[in-house]
Amino acid sequence: MLTLLDFLTAQSRIKPYLHPTLLEPSVTLGAGVYFKLENTNLTHAFKIRGALNAILAQADIARERGIIAASAGNHAVGVAYAAQLADATATLVMPRQTPQRKVEGARRLGATIVLYGDIYDEAEIHARELEQREGTLFVSPYNDPYVIAGQGTISLELLETIPSISRILVPTSGGGLLAGVATAAKLINPAIEVIGVQSVATPAMYNAFYGTDHSQLDTIADGLAGKIEEGSITVPLCRQYTDRIVLVEEQAIHESIRWVFRQHGWAIEGAAAVGVAALLTGQIEPQAGTVVIISGGNIDVEKFLHVMAE
Amino acid sequence: MLTLLDFLTAQSRIKPYLHPTLLEPSVTLGAGVYFKLENTNLTHAFKIRGALNAILAQADIARERGIIAASAGNHAVGVAYAAQLADATATLVMPRQTPQRKVEGARRLGATIVLYGDIYDEAEIHARELEQREGTLFVSPYNDPYVIAGQGTISLELLETIPSISRILVPTSGGGLLAGVATAAKLINPAIEVIGVQSVATPAMYNAFYGTDHSQLDTIADGLAGKIEEGSITVPLCRQYTDRIVLVEEQAIHESIRWVFRQHGWAIEGAAAVGVAALLTGQIEPQAGTVVIISGGNIDVEKFLHVMAE
Repeated sequence: MLTLLDFLTAQSRIKPYLHPTLLEPSVTLGAGVYFKLENTNLTHAFKIRGALNAILAQADIARERGIIAASAGNHAVGVAYAAQLADATATLVMPRQTPQRKVEGARRLGATIVLYGDIYDEAEIHARELEQREGTLFVSPYNDPYVIAGQGTISLELLETIPSISRILVPTSGGGLLAGVATAAKLINPAIEVIGVQSVATPAMYNAFYGTDHSQLDTIADGLAGKIEEGSITVPLCRQYTDRIVLVEEQAIHESIRWVFRQHGWAIEGAAAVGVAALLTGQIEPQAGTVVIISGGNIDVEKFLHVMAE
Repeated sequence: MLTLLDFLTAQSRIKPYLHPTLLEPSVTLGAGVYFKLENTNLTHAFKIRGALNAILAQADIARERGIIAASAGNHAVGVAYAAQLADATATLVMPRQTPQRKVEGARRLGATIVLYGDIYDEAEIHARELEQREGTLFVSPYNDPYVIAGQGTISLELLETIPSISRILVPTSGGGLLAGVATAAKLINPAIEVIGVQSVATPAMYNAFYGTDHSQLDTIADGLAGKIEEGSITVPLCRQYTDRIVLVEEQAIHESIRWVFRQHGWAIEGAAAVGVAALLTGQIEPQAGTVVIISGGNIDVEKFLHVMAE
């Protein structure tokens, strides 16, 4: 469904606009353990990779028809940024509770903001209606081969720098990041173990992977919340290329946010801390050759200060 | 004294080991204002550039005789890291009050730590004695043409990305960063205005530049504290290539640390916040084409949380 050429094409497409992100040893966790710091990416999250690849790959259509996307977070900023680079108009449907700062951030990048619904799923339904009615180009945050290929460029960057990587831990929600990283990594080296990590409170991909029916709860890993749409191509890709998915407790995520700030100086979002949580709790062994993807740094300031004071 | 070839040579030497750092628009400060985020560099500070260039340029001597340096902060980590890459032994003389975390960080990178003296200047005298006695290679944090050329690679990175830059704000202490950035920038485009920024509490280069005699006080910008050694090559370079030096108040630095975290999500050290302080206080106009160098992110966690709560 996706070939190595798709990932290499994505990389050559986005490379002129994005620096490689920082790869940092975490010697306290173990010799040969690394953080891939997507918080040091433009827009402070990996999402810019997929949005940029999808929009540049379809730049003519995007310029002609405009782009529409739904998101309360990092995907919105990625799409707004990519649309600006591609000289296309972007409409972003955001749930009404989206923090004002995020709304303003997307607006400053030139996007038109539509506030709609209480949660992401409602915003997406509205965005899909606009897609149908006005023929705009819808860019899904995860269920899109271009988006998945863009996220998978992380694996190419990793393997160019450290070809001996043996294990990658990937924060997981709709599975765009997991499908991209797992597919690219396994196509290059099938011996690499790829593990998805989710909060116990947001087990959508875990349920799809293992056929379980755990329910969704409140989580600090808000970037990982949300359902997976019926027929999403991420599910078969994750089933084919991912070794397993593990769930971490909410308290372990809080503890990991504190740990990463104290040990590494990075303020990271809850979704980005799940891989560290899996290592700190001992659910996964920090063997040499382990890379933990730190997916983004866009945590609300008050929430961060609150977690630090806990 | 330094030619563009020195900077290009430095860049080709360090490029295999260091990603370019993130260049981020700060639209809230003004259209066309950018942060050059050296906190996204390896070791979270620009110092790795100079240390790496100095040590790789003299790799044979470094391996044969070992390296010695004095520092309580970012230079120590940069030297330890570079020594490890060059397969040389490193001895670091650190003042006795250096936080345990920094001592451990340098030790983990394989350096031998000698705790000596109460302030940097005393540690440096001891390091110089060891240099004399044992013939080890001393790497100054600023008074070294290789170090200056390494820091100046920031200007090359900037001008490759945005050739229309018209002004650069540079945190200033011994002047290694300022001399490097100013020399490289002016050799490429003499019309670029280069401004050094210091805390009023740490006016060493300001005094050398203007012939004043302001005294040194306690500062949160601890990376900018310390005297400038007699005959330092940074002074004539700064005099030749820098347009002016401005002083910012300590309170404005605190406010800028908070502002950068709230607006951009980066926890940065006091020394790194001085350029932002000069813009927020209106001492310098945030005209389009302005780049503010954010020199590093290694702020003590408790100090940071204290500043955020002020």
